[in-house]
Amino acid sequence: MYATMIWEKDTLSILDQTKLPEKTVYITCYNYQRVKEAIAKLEVRGAPAIGAAAAFAMVLGAKEIENYSVFMDELKKIRDDLISARPTAVNLAWACHQLYNCAATCSLDISFDILIARMEDLALKIYNDDIKCNKLIGKYGAEIVPDSATLITHCNAGALATCGWGTALGVIRSAHLAKKIKMVYVDETRPLLQGARLTAYELQKENIPCTLITDNMAAWTIKTKGVNIAITGADRIALNGDAANKIGTYGLALICKAHNIPFYIAAPISTFDFTTATGADIPVEQRKGDEITKIGDKVIAPEGVATFNPSFDVTPNELITGIITEYGIIRAPYIESIKALQEKVKK
Amino acid sequence: MYATMIWEKDTLSILDQTKLPEKTVYITCYNYQRVKEAIAKLEVRGAPAIGAAAAFAMVLGAKEIENYSVFMDELKKIRDDLISARPTAVNLAWACHQLYNCAATCSLDISFDILIARMEDLALKIYNDDIKCNKLIGKYGAEIVPDSATLITHCNAGALATCGWGTALGVIRSAHLAKKIKMVYVDETRPLLQGARLTAYELQKENIPCTLITDNMAAWTIKTKGVNIAITGADRIALNGDAANKIGTYGLALICKAHNIPFYIAAPISTFDFTTATGADIPVEQRKGDEITKIGDKVIAPEGVATFNPSFDVTPNELITGIITEYGIIRAPYIESIKALQEKVKK
Repeated sequence: MYATMIWEKDTLSILDQTKLPEKTVYITCYNYQRVKEAIAKLEVRGAPAIGAAAAFAMVLGAKEIENYSVFMDELKKIRDDLISARPTAVNLAWACHQLYNCAATCSLDISFDILIARMEDLALKIYNDDIKCNKLIGKYGAEIVPDSATLITHCNAGALATCGWGTALGVIRSAHLAKKIKMVYVDETRPLLQGARLTAYELQKENIPCTLITDNMAAWTIKTKGVNIAITGADRIALNGDAANKIGTYGLALICKAHNIPFYIAAPISTFDFTTATGADIPVEQRKGDEITKIGDKVIAPEGVATFNPSFDVTPNELITGIITEYGIIRAPYIESIKALQEKVKK
Repeated sequence: MYATMIWEKDTLSILDQTKLPEKTVYITCYNYQRVKEAIAKLEVRGAPAIGAAAAFAMVLGAKEIENYSVFMDELKKIRDDLISARPTAVNLAWACHQLYNCAATCSLDISFDILIARMEDLALKIYNDDIKCNKLIGKYGAEIVPDSATLITHCNAGALATCGWGTALGVIRSAHLAKKIKMVYVDETRPLLQGARLTAYELQKENIPCTLITDNMAAWTIKTKGVNIAITGADRIALNGDAANKIGTYGLALICKAHNIPFYIAAPISTFDFTTATGADIPVEQRKGDEITKIGDKVIAPEGVATFNPSFDVTPNELITGIITEYGIIRAPYIESIKALQEKVKK
């Protein structure tokens, strides 16, 4: 697999995921603004990946500040500017706050170079920890994947959505190593086709058996192809276990329930928002209609037609069989299990 | 609205629906083989429309038979060839059998010209009856559409899927005339985008308020936009009320049930297959994978990826609130109500 991003001290090179699988192009970002643009344009996407990219962007941004006397004020503006790039995935805000707090807790007489070095160390730690977390998520998740599993997944929660290995696809990778995977059905995931372009691509590269379907085939596929488990990623999980993820996840979870098959979410701690009570409090990003009316440059709908283009939906906790984290699998009642998880993280 | 097809004695001109909404092009079919090709390629689609097109194709085919002494044998071959174009929609076979039986019941000493004229009259009757049926379906259906309705529909069951007016869209048209429509959410309907290309186009042309969504947005739209009724067409309805329709209908029906909103099917008598006991006996057409991996010429998935591309799914009767026909609305228990309908039709 290609690296999602490569940090090179003065630049962050980002794999342009809008061009995959056709072309493999890296965007060299010399400043935080270009990273923000990459996040907004979905050149880098996936909750953990945009968290790590934003962490590196904070380092680039910090380096750009010329007046050291107003450093924290300027860094705060950069932090808030980065957070505004996409509203739903909480990992973005989480990483920006981590980097800001790192700078804030440095003593005032520290040199600029040392401060930058500390921020850089933290960004690299966030990046490397994400890979470690994914491997642990994979390990715990593989245990609940049945033998000879026929899975279904939505969007891309793979190596490309993270710093490597993946969350939902990390579970699938680990289960594949344990020889448990018979077939993975991949929702293409309109409008931006992350399933077709990225998930099918990742699975194909590693010879994990996969079959591409359109999103509206999920119910018939589950009914007729013996699908026995669904796993997706998440972009933000509330205190009660309600989980925002790519649009279509909620419908898939309803369909799984109707067929009595387990629906799991795989996500690291950084995806939990311990300040959000329920899914109703999660902001759902609305994107431009031309994502629906066009595919690439091709117009596929009558000119001027109205659209509704929510980028995410929220799956209520009662539809979620379990959430696979790097601390193990948590289950209902989520209010209690997430509180216990929060305590564990604090330690 | 443009006519779906135009009969001109020696030719059938078919509106090429694969080119809509970008281009309005008619295909002039001089022989039955070209009509068959148009049906197979989805240049004409929609269960009632392919029934009518096949009826005219039978007339063209009959005219091509040179040896009158083996006329019925040849006509039978043409009939079976036409039926083989698409397996799921029963209207195709229904119309072909009607035309064949018309010829079969003519006396042996009738002139060739008179026989052709009778077949032509029947084909025109099938065409004109379809429009009348749709108007009746619209009338009955509009009664169950709530005031200030927010609807959702899937695929295209409009004027373009029929000889005019439409089944599901016929209900929406009639309800719009009765000032009952607040908004129609239109599933784009991958892979071939009949919702985006045809339904949005039809609604827009008539200033019926509509909003285009991707298929995987249906659940979130229903939950957050106050959708209070779903209506689709059908391609074949079994004796127990199980209904085959465009892939994605089954998932939509499950989602409607989860949100406790009524799910209706609108279809004429010719869509009922009184020889098929249940949905399990309905053949589901499988189409080529490149409908999924490409949009137009644009490749959207990694080369060589496996696909599953069922063109239809079957919605079990227990998910269907009612079936709107030209004889009124029938409801569960369907085995009894469909038997009663069959008796009514025989009279």
